[in-house]
Amino acid sequence: MASTLGRLFRVQTWGESHGGAVGVVVDGCPPRLELSETEIQSDLNRRRPGQSRLTTPRQEADRAEILSGVFEGRTLGTPILILVRNQDARPEAYEELKDVYRPSHADYTYEAKYGIRNWQGGGRASARETVGRVAAGAIARKVLRTHGVGEVIAHVSQVHTIESKLDPVSVSLEQVEAGPTRCPDPEAAREIEHRIDEVRRQGDSLGGIVTCVAHGVPPGLGEPVFDKLEADLARGLLSLPACKGFEIGSGFAGTRMTGSSHNDPFYTEDGTVRTRTNRSGGVQGGISNGEPIVVRAAFKPTATIHLEQETVTTQGEATRLSASGRHDPCVLPRAVPMVEAMVALVLCDHLLRQRALA
Amino acid sequence: MASTLGRLFRVQTWGESHGGAVGVVVDGCPPRLELSETEIQSDLNRRRPGQSRLTTPRQEADRAEILSGVFEGRTLGTPILILVRNQDARPEAYEELKDVYRPSHADYTYEAKYGIRNWQGGGRASARETVGRVAAGAIARKVLRTHGVGEVIAHVSQVHTIESKLDPVSVSLEQVEAGPTRCPDPEAAREIEHRIDEVRRQGDSLGGIVTCVAHGVPPGLGEPVFDKLEADLARGLLSLPACKGFEIGSGFAGTRMTGSSHNDPFYTEDGTVRTRTNRSGGVQGGISNGEPIVVRAAFKPTATIHLEQETVTTQGEATRLSASGRHDPCVLPRAVPMVEAMVALVLCDHLLRQRALA
Amino acid sequence: MASTLGRLFRVQTWGESHGGAVGVVVDGCPPRLELSETEIQSDLNRRRPGQSRLTTPRQEADRAEILSGVFEGRTLGTPILILVRNQDARPEAYEELKDVYRPSHADYTYEAKYGIRNWQGGGRASARETVGRVAAGAIARKVLRTHGVGEVIAHVSQVHTIESKLDPVSVSLEQVEAGPTRCPDPEAAREIEHRIDEVRRQGDSLGGIVTCVAHGVPPGLGEPVFDKLEADLARGLLSLPACKGFEIGSGFAGTRMTGSSHNDPFYTEDGTVRTRTNRSGGVQGGISNGEPIVVRAAFKPTATIHLEQETVTTQGEATRLSASGRHDPCVLPRAVPMVEAMVALVLCDHLLRQRALA
Amino acid sequence: MASTLGRLFRVQTWGESHGGAVGVVVDGCPPRLELSETEIQSDLNRRRPGQSRLTTPRQEADRAEILSGVFEGRTLGTPILILVRNQDARPEAYEELKDVYRPSHADYTYEAKYGIRNWQGGGRASARETVGRVAAGAIARKVLRTHGVGEVIAHVSQVHTIESKLDPVSVSLEQVEAGPTRCPDPEAAREIEHRIDEVRRQGDSLGGIVTCVAHGVPPGLGEPVFDKLEADLARGLLSLPACKGFEIGSGFAGTRMTGSSHNDPFYTEDGTVRTRTNRSGGVQGGISNGEPIVVRAAFKPTATIHLEQETVTTQGEATRLSASGRHDPCVLPRAVPMVEAMVALVLCDHLLRQRALA
Repeated sequence: MASTLGRLFRVQTWGESHGGAVGVVVDGCPPRLELSETEIQSDLNRRRPGQSRLTTPRQEADRAEILSGVFEGRTLGTPILILVRNQDARPEAYEELKDVYRPSHADYTYEAKYGIRNWQGGGRASARETVGRVAAGAIARKVLRTHGVGEVIAHVSQVHTIESKLDPVSVSLEQVEAGPTRCPDPEAAREIEHRIDEVRRQGDSLGGIVTCVAHGVPPGLGEPVFDKLEADLARGLLSLPACKGFEIGSGFAGTRMTGSSHNDPFYTEDGTVRTRTNRSGGVQGGISNGEPIVVRAAFKPTATIHLEQETVTTQGEATRLSASGRHDPCVLPRAVPMVEAMVALVLCDHLLRQRALA
Repeated sequence: MASTLGRLFRVQTWGESHGGAVGVVVDGCPPRLELSETEIQSDLNRRRPGQSRLTTPRQEADRAEILSGVFEGRTLGTPILILVRNQDARPEAYEELKDVYRPSHADYTYEAKYGIRNWQGGGRASARETVGRVAAGAIARKVLRTHGVGEVIAHVSQVHTIESKLDPVSVSLEQVEAGPTRCPDPEAAREIEHRIDEVRRQGDSLGGIVTCVAHGVPPGLGEPVFDKLEADLARGLLSLPACKGFEIGSGFAGTRMTGSSHNDPFYTEDGTVRTRTNRSGGVQGGISNGEPIVVRAAFKPTATIHLEQETVTTQGEATRLSASGRHDPCVLPRAVPMVEAMVALVLCDHLLRQRALA
Repeated sequence: MASTLGRLFRVQTWGESHGGAVGVVVDGCPPRLELSETEIQSDLNRRRPGQSRLTTPRQEADRAEILSGVFEGRTLGTPILILVRNQDARPEAYEELKDVYRPSHADYTYEAKYGIRNWQGGGRASARETVGRVAAGAIARKVLRTHGVGEVIAHVSQVHTIESKLDPVSVSLEQVEAGPTRCPDPEAAREIEHRIDEVRRQGDSLGGIVTCVAHGVPPGLGEPVFDKLEADLARGLLSLPACKGFEIGSGFAGTRMTGSSHNDPFYTEDGTVRTRTNRSGGVQGGISNGEPIVVRAAFKPTATIHLEQETVTTQGEATRLSASGRHDPCVLPRAVPMVEAMVALVLCDHLLRQRALA
Repeated sequence: MASTLGRLFRVQTWGESHGGAVGVVVDGCPPRLELSETEIQSDLNRRRPGQSRLTTPRQEADRAEILSGVFEGRTLGTPILILVRNQDARPEAYEELKDVYRPSHADYTYEAKYGIRNWQGGGRASARETVGRVAAGAIARKVLRTHGVGEVIAHVSQVHTIESKLDPVSVSLEQVEAGPTRCPDPEAAREIEHRIDEVRRQGDSLGGIVTCVAHGVPPGLGEPVFDKLEADLARGLLSLPACKGFEIGSGFAGTRMTGSSHNDPFYTEDGTVRTRTNRSGGVQGGISNGEPIVVRAAFKPTATIHLEQETVTTQGEATRLSASGRHDPCVLPRAVPMVEAMVALVLCDHLLRQRALA
């Protein structure tokens, strides 16, 4: 519902990019989980702009405060409120955007929906809203770990036309974090770095793909019909800013195969039912089958560019816009922790649901 | 929640492919809407197997009964129960499947989740469950029409490697329904028909892509963050059997563009803000912008094939499976009304939500 | 949401008193539970009109059909659809009510809300809607039993000014079912029977109180704040037709006590924390404490009477109404299984929620 | 769901009485509503302890901060986060309660449910949690006013055995706020003040009843079956700390009447359908009928008393507890704004839902 995700592990984000603060309420977290601000902070740091010269120079300390739901270092089972103050607001930088709709931003649609918008930044449509998601995702990952689920590891698998050659299932967190691109293939990473530098100089921007693998997910998560695991994952990823596409397993490429080559043959390994291939992406009929869950999210090129663009004013008059100021030419490296958070949140909710049936 | 979709226009499907009946409860439909079983039937007929030699030969009359919520031909505002009896059950045809997991079906995952499954067919994972969705979608489309929203038109835009060359926004319902493939490009349609015939003879199957356009959607539908219109559309389409991917607007192809070529310039036409291109696919920041909403859903090749496959028994023993009996080599033509239904259901729910804010 | 109750054990009723059928979808029932139509039927029979000369003479076989969610006598974990055809509809009996608002019925408010109503009976406001609830309640009670929760036993504790003298916690199902009044105190039962006969002859009606005890509920069910167990029980009971009041434990009488006489002292019995008194009614801070849960529901006198009443037509003109036809002078005996169903449904949902945390 | 109330106007409270802060997220508030911290503060001040010598001496500034959802003094339509820091925490005052279960408090049940509790106060079960509700209620009341609904006015109608003699519908806000008891009947107010002083000296406590009237509610709010207006009101009020009973209209007293004396005759006044009496309490069949909505909430005597009580330690050993420190002998005056908030929240949600159907 609007700003809420999940049925048992419920996440409600709040906050505009340029209001007083952003954050999240996590309601339904199991009790007695050890949890500290430090753990959340480390995921927030990965999301934060200004980590490397590749990302937006916006400087935000993004210091997480836990204001409820934790007592003496452990969760109480009650709502956890996490708050991050907005420090680098600089509304004057947005003054020029007060009366103009930025192409492919949400300025016009928010105005059309609400008849009002916070023009001092992207409001709820800003990537800054994801602070709350990443904080909640850190908690979800801890819950998953506590219940024996493996790691959720995302990486940049494509920027513009440059693709990683690695098998996503083989990628480790260390490989992802080895460089500023979060592309684990060193050769592709170098090219991507070069390409991003190039478009930054041009004032242009790039899109790409984040691939995410959830390891060690037990069979049985997900529910038939509308709450299929892939449906909830798709919703979660498409809810991220700039995401325009989702695939699980073979995805769009699988449409070019025949059934006999696409079906995943079953076999038994140490008493466990396994599949020889994983074109299903770890989910069959909406329910996890124990294989790694592999999803891909397509991100369009960042809408904010410095090149001059055709647009209209809020009064509907034609105008030209040349945005000045900060500019993040490629959101992909920062999208990695966002994708991980969304996948973890969906899995955590379904894990708790499944426990209710057990 | 599990088998429920929507917040104000709420749809709950129920029924196994081989239980007594399948159907749907639609709760939250506006009152005083004219509604007859005939209208629902006409959409069900498009979904029905056995419409043409291209689809599964399973013969189902799929006769819709409305058992509540309608009085003297108009909706009451109360829950509408639609029921379709299962007539062509033939459990004996499935006897051979009782003790074996069909590859890339949901047999194993349902067993893993529930410890029980209705082995007389696909249960809730069967395409038969979509009867309820299509019936509900017929009501949603009527609500949309009543509120001045245009038509929701889907078509088969790709089967295996064969693609339609038409602009999806230009496609009419008549073009879609002109032939058994529901591909509106006559040349592609011919090839597709041939290709399907070929794999049927081989006992194999094909996948493909359904593209769907919602015309005349007003600006302002969708909500920020988790209930973004594209997020709910993605969830809706990924909840369809065999769907493995989703795109809106430029989708995955857009990841290979730069921001300057991808952004949709705004202009004004007759006092209305429009975009010159529609790479956003009619949605910006999760909210409709008044342009046609264009989405694509990837369907994997049908899992049921006649060729021999490696698999395991429910006891975990290796075995070979050669399914006999009926076989639908390509679900794409029948997926068209399913996709339309899901898109209509999501739009209808968001339309009602937006009215609450007005 | 509207016609849905519960978060994990979700119940959606549907059907008007004079449409084709009434029923329920139960979504979220645990799998592998043995379940037959016979079990549901036995609870429906207790709810059914015409059981004794004390209740409405309306004759309804109320034959329950399970159309989905059960396979070979066990639940599948998928939605269970239960349907009961309306057989004794007699719309002509309601023709006189087409253009008039019956006092203290929902005729006017449904018309005000929806601009349409099914005037052939009470529509969704009819007690007939509770068929679905009682059927779902039968399933909930079975789930509770499976998980070691004790019985949910309701009884008529007051009709008009006549009160049962028995301690509610001591009342057995046998005592309740011993006579047509469902009042377990034989002396009060005789008086009630006499009083009901009297008002029937007068064409008038009576209200009263149903008291319900849930035995053997483990500590820990219920959630803080808005989903407190007593809050959900209150919602459940107030959702029954004609219910105007709710109490748990000491209820309104407790407002006349002091804290020192009202507080329930704790003590330990065989290692279990118990309370010496149970003014809390088995719930403290929204969560069960292991003592019997004791609630009371006030039902106003049945609105349908034969005496002449002042009212208005649907055109707003003053008129006099003297209803003819069937007349149930006291709904209390039939309310007993309805109250049990609602209490069981709320407990079952919270039981499953608690398992998710365990 | 747990800490969430409402479907369209959604309220999520968070915070323990002795964590860093308490507060609320209001999601779904209509946009462009003028809203300032001052307006919220004035309702919070009415809820605040220490307003008069009658209430708890705990001193809390309860300064509300709006951290999101409001821009230049108007709501954005996005989630509104309101935060109130806990200032008067004094954990040392609770040290003595670390290892003991206070009778009729939630200490034992929280421990039983979660295996952990914040023993520095009442945690989520504390009346302090209602800070968020009252803040949200202030917004709800503003939305109601904007849409032409009249005022929601609650008052103390009974403390212990002392009752107000006034007709609740006639009571004005001025009368309620005239004295520290919030009982508008001056004679009863004097007695109540005396009685409270008496039990304070004795270290004991009192309960009572709050009656609430919602004026000017249009016909048509509420939904059939589980979301009946009275069902949601009952849930809302029973979710308040110490509430043990709920009545609407004639409530429990109505059970002693006959149908002919209880039914509310309809008549027409200036083209509007009205009822001559209002035993229905403004709601028929779950839907408002345009008459004042009249509800009553029973509050048990405050559990915290200074008199010695029998109880057990967290280890299950028998002990005696004589609480020292602060003590609020009667929560009724402070319960008035809490009840108003809950009624306003429920009405506001149903108002928005009804607009979606219009």
